[in-house]
Amino acid sequence: MSAEGRLMAAEIAEQPEVWRRQLTEGAERIAAAAARIADAAPRFVLFVARGSSDHAALYAKYLVEIVHGLPAGLVSPSTMTVYGARPKLDDVLYVAVSQSGGSPDLVRSVEVARERGALTLAVTNNADSQLAAAAEIHVDVLAGAERSVAATKSYTAELLALYLLFGSRDGRDATHLPDLGDRVLSHDVDGIAGRYRFAQRLITTGRGYSYPTAREAALKLMETCYLSAQAFSGADLLHGPLATVDAQVPVVALVPDGRSGHAMLPVLSRLAERGADVLVVGAGPAGALGHTARIALPAGIPEELSPLLEILPLQKLSLRLAVDRGEDPDNPRGLHKVTKTL
Amino acid sequence: MSAEGRLMAAEIAEQPEVWRRQLTEGAERIAAAAARIADAAPRFVLFVARGSSDHAALYAKYLVEIVHGLPAGLVSPSTMTVYGARPKLDDVLYVAVSQSGGSPDLVRSVEVARERGALTLAVTNNADSQLAAAAEIHVDVLAGAERSVAATKSYTAELLALYLLFGSRDGRDATHLPDLGDRVLSHDVDGIAGRYRFAQRLITTGRGYSYPTAREAALKLMETCYLSAQAFSGADLLHGPLATVDAQVPVVALVPDGRSGHAMLPVLSRLAERGADVLVVGAGPAGALGHTARIALPAGIPEELSPLLEILPLQKLSLRLAVDRGEDPDNPRGLHKVTKTL
Repeated sequence: MSAEGRLMAAEIAEQPEVWRRQLTEGAERIAAAAARIADAAPRFVLFVARGSSDHAALYAKYLVEIVHGLPAGLVSPSTMTVYGARPKLDDVLYVAVSQSGGSPDLVRSVEVARERGALTLAVTNNADSQLAAAAEIHVDVLAGAERSVAATKSYTAELLALYLLFGSRDGRDATHLPDLGDRVLSHDVDGIAGRYRFAQRLITTGRGYSYPTAREAALKLMETCYLSAQAFSGADLLHGPLATVDAQVPVVALVPDGRSGHAMLPVLSRLAERGADVLVVGAGPAGALGHTARIALPAGIPEELSPLLEILPLQKLSLRLAVDRGEDPDNPRGLHKVTKTL
Repeated sequence: MSAEGRLMAAEIAEQPEVWRRQLTEGAERIAAAAARIADAAPRFVLFVARGSSDHAALYAKYLVEIVHGLPAGLVSPSTMTVYGARPKLDDVLYVAVSQSGGSPDLVRSVEVARERGALTLAVTNNADSQLAAAAEIHVDVLAGAERSVAATKSYTAELLALYLLFGSRDGRDATHLPDLGDRVLSHDVDGIAGRYRFAQRLITTGRGYSYPTAREAALKLMETCYLSAQAFSGADLLHGPLATVDAQVPVVALVPDGRSGHAMLPVLSRLAERGADVLVVGAGPAGALGHTARIALPAGIPEELSPLLEILPLQKLSLRLAVDRGEDPDNPRGLHKVTKTL
């Protein structure tokens, strides 16, 4: 590999080690935060985030809805910062997710939520950030300094922190995750990256817990390769965007071992009818369908944890493809590491 | 215009007449539905929808958050249909939005929501649909039979119904809307469509109430022209996808007269730095910035109503471009009018 992408490559490789840190030295603080939330017994959970962290928040929204049976929503910060809304937030848990903890609109929305009666939680990679200070509870995802503009280790660290907060009673089901992560990262994706060398458009798709993976993979490809990568839930893809698919628009489909993988089978079948070129990623059932390529992943972990493994080969794919195309994924054109929006 | 697109053209042209019908013969039933909701005094509002109706639901979510100050969320139906979640929905208003009222996942999710204690409302264009029957309250958007696969009149009829339910006390501020709609539709967009004749990628962007317009415009361009059209909120665009923008990727920016138009100015400025080709649509301030083309819209209506006018030239643009490219927008490849997802 050329000098470009050195930071991103190192940060991708660090992920299993970050997860080990979270499961050992981070466990106690996360359990304390989870206990405080349980005591408050919120009736509704709102998430606020941008970029990759927004995908981690979407993942957590599925956990809250499915595991806890609580209604949940993703907040548009503009309702508070642009329109000045002051919502009634009693009985609401308000969760901000941000790598840097530095975007003014997120900080402001947490301040407003706290004034308006919500219990506020910040999940960040920066304990000294304004966001951490603004919220009543702070969880540090312990990913260490992230220097590549394209988030990788902070994304999966956010996923794991949110899983430990909202998806698991004791974190024991995540014990094997770091070893599985090492195993997944040991496989190279160079051959598959070569197939997309000249692509300008790409579609990613998944359902349920894997839909955030589709979103995050598309964002990585946009940030590092400048591809027009579009993510759709498997169901939403059939409500319109399917028309854009033909043999010239590659598709990446997340098919985990579990319910959402099974629910992707009718989507794969409709894609096959359209003559699509489909890369299937995951441990799920896809044998019978005519996909073009596959990245198989280890089976036997709870479906809720599969997003942590699924994104790894797609991070590597983005990096490899960017370098092959002569781009510098550590410094995408037009972007800064901390994006400040109002 | 060739024979292709005849249905879509007719349905685009009908919209002001549909709005007049809603504001006269539909007004009483909507007021009754709004009164029933006010009596129930919900504390949280959830929306469930797919495709164009999902964009109408997103618009309504902004109304609920800003005008009513209530927390709100968009539900992923898969949590109930794929994962079997049975959330606690006391004090929740659960709103399903669907042109056909026929998608099994939406019907099932409304049934579950009703069993679990929510007050349920269906907003559809089909009073005889399963969805209308499943919900306690039904509002018919009165758009009349929609035959083109790409939704147009049903979309703006949903917007107006949702505005009358959640955005307005008495609907009086919408009185002039149909006449303004006729005025907007009288302008042709053929010259602007010509600029995109050979584009394969396009980005749409807006904030607040206009973000749903960006989403809906992108979907129309995908369905009818098979463009890779990506919609981003102005803030999200700066968190990563901006890297994909260069002089070769056209941008359509919604800049209404109002707060979200003002909040788009820093976004336009960043786009100008990237050398983007920007079409500005709306009545807002854009004079100072280097946009490439503009579709000006009438000023002086409340910002909340601007999405009804903004989408009109973009529907016409999709239609014109599809026909110019030799496609049949009434029958997009791979799609059916009613999409049934589970």
